[in-house]
Amino acid sequence: MLHELLHEAPGPSPLDPPHHPPLVLVAASGGADSMALASALAFEAPRAGLRAGAVTVDHGLQDGSAARAAEVADRLTALGLTPVDIAAVTVGRSGGTEAAARTARYRALDTAADRHHAAAVLLGHTRDDQAETVLLGLARGSGVRSLSGMAAVSGGTAGHTGRYRRPFLGIDRQTTRKACLVQSLPVWDDPHNTDPSYTRSRVRHEALPILEKALGRGVVEALARTAALARDDADALDLWAADAEGTATAEDGTLAIAALAPLPPAVRRRVLRRAAVAAGAPAGSLFARHIEETDRLITDWHGQRPLNLPGRVEVARQGGRLVLRQADRADGADR
Amino acid sequence: MLHELLHEAPGPSPLDPPHHPPLVLVAASGGADSMALASALAFEAPRAGLRAGAVTVDHGLQDGSAARAAEVADRLTALGLTPVDIAAVTVGRSGGTEAAARTARYRALDTAADRHHAAAVLLGHTRDDQAETVLLGLARGSGVRSLSGMAAVSGGTAGHTGRYRRPFLGIDRQTTRKACLVQSLPVWDDPHNTDPSYTRSRVRHEALPILEKALGRGVVEALARTAALARDDADALDLWAADAEGTATAEDGTLAIAALAPLPPAVRRRVLRRAAVAAGAPAGSLFARHIEETDRLITDWHGQRPLNLPGRVEVARQGGRLVLRQADRADGADR
Repeated sequence: MLHELLHEAPGPSPLDPPHHPPLVLVAASGGADSMALASALAFEAPRAGLRAGAVTVDHGLQDGSAARAAEVADRLTALGLTPVDIAAVTVGRSGGTEAAARTARYRALDTAADRHHAAAVLLGHTRDDQAETVLLGLARGSGVRSLSGMAAVSGGTAGHTGRYRRPFLGIDRQTTRKACLVQSLPVWDDPHNTDPSYTRSRVRHEALPILEKALGRGVVEALARTAALARDDADALDLWAADAEGTATAEDGTLAIAALAPLPPAVRRRVLRRAAVAAGAPAGSLFARHIEETDRLITDWHGQRPLNLPGRVEVARQGGRLVLRQADRADGADR
Repeated sequence: MLHELLHEAPGPSPLDPPHHPPLVLVAASGGADSMALASALAFEAPRAGLRAGAVTVDHGLQDGSAARAAEVADRLTALGLTPVDIAAVTVGRSGGTEAAARTARYRALDTAADRHHAAAVLLGHTRDDQAETVLLGLARGSGVRSLSGMAAVSGGTAGHTGRYRRPFLGIDRQTTRKACLVQSLPVWDDPHNTDPSYTRSRVRHEALPILEKALGRGVVEALARTAALARDDADALDLWAADAEGTATAEDGTLAIAALAPLPPAVRRRVLRRAAVAAGAPAGSLFARHIEETDRLITDWHGQRPLNLPGRVEVARQGGRLVLRQADRADGADR
């Protein structure tokens, strides 16, 4: 799997120094999953005509984290990886420590990848991580997109298409532990991973074992399969919605009710969400109830007043059309 | 909510004796959810111009179950419901006791509804039952349809469109307990509901509490919301697949590869599943791997041999078309 993925790695960037083979970086915390991946990359890369390097992120959240990062970097260097970067980041508080650490981590990985003109960054997420991500998405209750977990290939925060690769998404965590054991690779277990004050840690150590007990073995596989199916479903529905939005939208940006009304609810709500975001509503502040209320202007029209959506977006039904308009920033209203 | 639902109840059946108002039956085990529903129905039905009756099913799985059913029937009669039927069933073993009991129960409810020419049968499933059903579906890992839980309105085993109604699907179980308490309605807690040898009981008493602890309050609501969204998504994708199947299928039943190839994978796989079932493959025996293998005849064509699907259905790519054909029953092969 890693083998195939490396062979699919993008070709050299035009920014590469000439005659250098493309560089693939592995993001390594020092845990079993990322160390197994680093070791596999060190072995496979030269055979695939690639250079292999690594980045380890020092989140600065624990005493001695700098020394820990230096030790992990030494282990990565010992595997034959070069360059090996240590990226020290400052984790904010916005959205909670877990989310803030994630944001800081990906920003640091993007920066390292840019600096080294890396063709790809490999991440050690396993099938178990995927199952945890699906459960976390399930708790949001916001539909198939949030059930689709992590993509095998995804872009960075800076929008680099397909920069991040997750070759271990189909492999269980235990397998990465065994791989490290047989290679006598020392691994470091991040105490955050077992700290019950972190949601993911509670999902990993409390929720998943009980779910396996209640529902039978194979829950992790079922959750990972759900992620893959949900991703394809969400992609297909997004395609339909984009197409329907194109058909319904006039040059002035208003939407034809007659084109929206016959759509299945799942598609129509996606069109309305897209239109609201296009009009200036922040995607993260648009909740299901906003979209449902907007939908009632179509499906349950009885002369309602215009609605106010987040981001000062007003939605009104005028004649046979839906008009979404952002209020003027200067005076807070444009009418 | 019950009020609205009753007002939406189908009009009198042409089989009703003349001048009889339509009859709505409640399926009552004697537990808090169904007794609260029976009590609400007894109150609302006359105001909605309906008659209210009940059926209680004696599954014969516990000692004294017949006496228990008689007691529940007495309580239903005391609420003013009439007729009140006791349906004694024999539960088989096929697919496990839980599944067999469910099959026998719905068959008995269908029979009672037919005999009394009932316009609808109300079921006391709550939002908690819905959350449990979503988790059970998640364990199958077979995509959005299995995450969509129970429908607010669904057909019976005999295919009566919309016979079954679940007016409490948005209400939590605790509310039905309180309703019984304030009305001093005696309720009966089925010991099967707490028997850890039943999967649903483990989900209810072990998995959901731990999930709430790990993911925070509101997991039940999130699961119920997921069910509603997943149902709409599955419906929309089924519509697309039905439409795409119509476009791709020629008069001889073969499918045009050129029409299938550009479809999003989620839609193409649904078309292939529909075609396999139409050719005679039993839906319950068709697994994701069968459909994926079939899909590779389109997306990864390199002269593969024909595939064998369950139900002796053979799939072959011939020229630009996909041919699905059931082998002759007499000799096990038709070529």
